[in-house]
Amino acid sequence: MDNAEFLALGRQVLATQPFSVLLGARLEAFQPGRVTLALTLKPEHMQQHGMAHGGVVSYLADNALTFAGGSALGVEVITAEFKINYARPARGSALIARASVVATSGRQAVCRCDVWAVQEGGEVLVAAAQGTIVRRAADSA
Amino acid sequence: MDNAEFLALGRQVLATQPFSVLLGARLEAFQPGRVTLALTLKPEHMQQHGMAHGGVVSYLADNALTFAGGSALGVEVITAEFKINYARPARGSALIARASVVATSGRQAVCRCDVWAVQEGGEVLVAAAQGTIVRRAADSA
Amino acid sequence: MDNAEFLALGRQVLATQPFSVLLGARLEAFQPGRVTLALTLKPEHMQQHGMAHGGVVSYLADNALTFAGGSALGVEVITAEFKINYARPARGSALIARASVVATSGRQAVCRCDVWAVQEGGEVLVAAAQGTIVRRAADSA
Amino acid sequence: MDNAEFLALGRQVLATQPFSVLLGARLEAFQPGRVTLALTLKPEHMQQHGMAHGGVVSYLADNALTFAGGSALGVEVITAEFKINYARPARGSALIARASVVATSGRQAVCRCDVWAVQEGGEVLVAAAQGTIVRRAADSA
Repeated sequence: MDNAEFLALGRQVLATQPFSVLLGARLEAFQPGRVTLALTLKPEHMQQHGMAHGGVVSYLADNALTFAGGSALGVEVITAEFKINYARPARGSALIARASVVATSGRQAVCRCDVWAVQEGGEVLVAAAQGTIVRRAADSA
Repeated sequence: MDNAEFLALGRQVLATQPFSVLLGARLEAFQPGRVTLALTLKPEHMQQHGMAHGGVVSYLADNALTFAGGSALGVEVITAEFKINYARPARGSALIARASVVATSGRQAVCRCDVWAVQEGGEVLVAAAQGTIVRRAADSA
Repeated sequence: MDNAEFLALGRQVLATQPFSVLLGARLEAFQPGRVTLALTLKPEHMQQHGMAHGGVVSYLADNALTFAGGSALGVEVITAEFKINYARPARGSALIARASVVATSGRQAVCRCDVWAVQEGGEVLVAAAQGTIVRRAADSA
Repeated sequence: MDNAEFLALGRQVLATQPFSVLLGARLEAFQPGRVTLALTLKPEHMQQHGMAHGGVVSYLADNALTFAGGSALGVEVITAEFKINYARPARGSALIARASVVATSGRQAVCRCDVWAVQEGGEVLVAAAQGTIVRRAADSA
């Protein structure tokens, strides 16, 4: 599979996630072990102080981690767990999550993700995440 | 402030979060150090396998942690960080997040949250989370 | 296996860990899904401010999580990951870690652990941890 | 302060931590926002399968995160929380933790750390960590 086919496949998967469609997530880059997932910020993504809700930032990190892990493991996967540090207020026109695989071993991939906010002066790091992606068993989330 | 006033205040805050309104989150219980936040599962909350997307589960955990921490610290707060383990598939009619404060010290509260799925046979634990809630500085998320 | 045999087995396993012997860890209670691991604090456990080093606290949490998970899964296990929040200074005569299983599914157990410091006035919570214990594969740590 | 003075200062701090002395940790590099902390593996660092105990790996990650955060914040600091993923068995002659600052904001630094095992064929990544370092208050750990 070449790069364009791989990206097209990833976009097909993303399009089958109603919650990703609801939030407007876009797969901007996708290759084995590496992914960029973005989101244009809209009023409905906000919390009460005019910034993106933590839940939007963590959705983006979670899903980027899952796609990164899945691209490396080459099978259906789920996120077993992750942690996220909110480093700065998530203000801007868009959010961009870039995730990559740190290590794979057996049925799991340890992945990291940085989430950036697109602001007038450029991109600002707003969150850092790390988690475990595992092969999906028969009846797993 | 009595219990009913405290709950009413919490619901006012939740209503000012557009993302919480988008997802349909409801504050079902709220007292100092303890919160119950729920969500009726709808088609737009799903991922591709017919279960709630991890991002919905983590939104609920994140926000429940924030409310629990805020209720204990008594000031405007933000979630500095959290981690979540997805324990079982998030299938059911609704999700219920119950969060409480483990310890407060100075300007932070360490909180835990369990997320349950309401299924025919009763409630099933689908995720466990833990995080740090801190006082909100002037320009924080 | 009755309770006394189960505890004796756990103590045998602990005694085979040179690092646990170096730190003086003691298994005080051990039953399926639940464990108490303790440590008398000595000068060599300290950091520069006269409190137990975070590494001692995290060792105790990590190992308690592993024993809790192992007791539930009933096989050789390893800690895949964990997170720990240091809630208060770890001062006192001893540390006590109490861990239990939150959920098991397939080959993993999600566990939580509280670490308490024994002080003159009683026990004080100094750390809270949460992690994933998995079955040990052929060549895993 | 030039690089050599900065490193010398860091080594002085490390030498005041009895637990770090017990484990034989060495500060190999130290500059604002970046640190390398190493440890020669000895029999007393092992668990029951001939690999470094998770507690040794997590000690090294925890302390490297703390030094990285402290070097950036320029004040006395403590680790508020961290998470660690054990990616591969920690076998080898030594462990090397390399930590750096991801973002600072106000009184906290978000840091990441990779822990490598020195094996015959080279270095192998055995763990990945991420955590929050904060300014130390008057009576904090």
